[in-house]
Amino acid sequence: MKIDLTTAIEQLKNANDIVILLHQFPDGDTVGSGYALYDALKSLGKRARVECAHAISKSMSYITDGVEFPEFTPKTVVAVDVADAKLLGDKQSEYPQVDLCIDHHESNTYFAKHTYVDSSAAAACEIIAKIVKALCGELSCTQATALYTGIATDTGCFKFSNTTPATFRMAADLVECGVDTETINRIMFDTKTKARIQVEKEAMETIKYFADGKIAIMTVTKQMRKSSSVGDGELEGLTALPRQIEGVLMGITIRERDNTDLCKVSVRTHPPISASEFCSIFGGGGHPRAAGCELLMRKEEALDYLSRAAIKAVEQAGL
Amino acid sequence: MKIDLTTAIEQLKNANDIVILLHQFPDGDTVGSGYALYDALKSLGKRARVECAHAISKSMSYITDGVEFPEFTPKTVVAVDVADAKLLGDKQSEYPQVDLCIDHHESNTYFAKHTYVDSSAAAACEIIAKIVKALCGELSCTQATALYTGIATDTGCFKFSNTTPATFRMAADLVECGVDTETINRIMFDTKTKARIQVEKEAMETIKYFADGKIAIMTVTKQMRKSSSVGDGELEGLTALPRQIEGVLMGITIRERDNTDLCKVSVRTHPPISASEFCSIFGGGGHPRAAGCELLMRKEEALDYLSRAAIKAVEQAGL
Repeated sequence: MKIDLTTAIEQLKNANDIVILLHQFPDGDTVGSGYALYDALKSLGKRARVECAHAISKSMSYITDGVEFPEFTPKTVVAVDVADAKLLGDKQSEYPQVDLCIDHHESNTYFAKHTYVDSSAAAACEIIAKIVKALCGELSCTQATALYTGIATDTGCFKFSNTTPATFRMAADLVECGVDTETINRIMFDTKTKARIQVEKEAMETIKYFADGKIAIMTVTKQMRKSSSVGDGELEGLTALPRQIEGVLMGITIRERDNTDLCKVSVRTHPPISASEFCSIFGGGGHPRAAGCELLMRKEEALDYLSRAAIKAVEQAGL
Repeated sequence: MKIDLTTAIEQLKNANDIVILLHQFPDGDTVGSGYALYDALKSLGKRARVECAHAISKSMSYITDGVEFPEFTPKTVVAVDVADAKLLGDKQSEYPQVDLCIDHHESNTYFAKHTYVDSSAAAACEIIAKIVKALCGELSCTQATALYTGIATDTGCFKFSNTTPATFRMAADLVECGVDTETINRIMFDTKTKARIQVEKEAMETIKYFADGKIAIMTVTKQMRKSSSVGDGELEGLTALPRQIEGVLMGITIRERDNTDLCKVSVRTHPPISASEFCSIFGGGGHPRAAGCELLMRKEEALDYLSRAAIKAVEQAGL
């Protein structure tokens, strides 16, 4: 059932012994939402804890360090930044019924008993900030730090087009609570592991251009990942590289999977080319500017296949 | 003479036939300030024009295209985002007296007859936005587009620590005027030339680590710049790379100069190491986190020399 923000706040006020569920492969927004909401509920004298199918990255230890969750048998299950029950991962079977879901994804499947979605919010943290204000009167620095993390990471530090005037104003309020934005931004946006640098360097060597430089295709091989011992999390954002090149309208990244002849393909485009339309040809999908698909073939074949299809897409767009 | 904001606004209201001077090597902030102020003065029926010692980058054509300045003999000279008369470049001799300077640099030398400085502003555009509001009542989309550019570029798209709650709130107001932030952010923060990618790749190959990875030194050779035909403007931000590597506290970039045995050195540090203190050893200077110096030696010698000094600096900091 769809509910409004006031009802969601009322339900949280009346809730007790609350488990807050994050989505799997947790990012800054789900972690920030979960920990800020936990802190608010705790300050109201309620028992609460945060759970997630996967471990939270050490890079967010400034949010998670020192937090000790109490043990209790849950009476209320809340999900934050979770668009689909599947995204709970292993927690789905543990918590088959979610009482309240608070989210900002237009694609939310309304899997919970009660759901509040505001798809105009750049981040779930933008919604949670309003809820925490309503619950606690004002935001603490701890809460604001978690919430700023979610808003900053989901907007690429206010660079993506989901950043609205409301996002900026919420960021202003959060920063006023004493958030150490310099440190957070450094950790989130200005730190690369040596392994990442290594893979980036090698992957850049593979970039091939097509259609007078309007298409750039980069390949990340198993070998590169193996020799650098890079973790999957460390490769985030790598797929943005090809489209960053001047003149490139379609930036494609082929990622060779371990132990299979399967390639993961990420497509980033500039208008008027639609990444999701392009990927739908191969059974994939996503957003107009960023989409993905999988190809059951070796990387050389994938390159050949994708370059032909991309040239066609560019021609069809009359470019 | 130092003046307050109200006085600066009054002077502009009473001014006529106004030349607005930008600083040399114009960046987004001086260009945004100049063009927004020009537009405001024009809308009040005044004759005004913008002048700069150097051409404005084509990347900012969305601000400059279609603007045609009238010819007139100037009665009032205004400088925006100019901390020192020297920074006017060739315009200094053409306009030896500046009537009004509006700036956000703490280091402003008060070279103008009247100067308004607000060093808490992240960008001169943050101040100019207030002035344009006072002059015109409200901001047009054209004015807001120029002003957003200055605020976004001077804050690294709201990533640098100069971003304050006031900066975020001003950004909210500007975006509400209909600024196409998606396009601006793409041009300013998400576009690299192929030549830049080439140099980046080769420069990354040269990175050498010292002091257990706390120091990273990268070299950009004449050869790299020559073979890629990269322009100086395209290399901006390259010096941020070494410090972005996980664990690196001192990121040093050696840039070999053409036709001389001179190396330009850029130093970026994380606390507690001071980049400006380090560079002062070599007669250079700058800010605590970003500073520079020049060394009259070949790049191999510079690497040896700098690595020894950097190891010492790291040791002295007890790291």
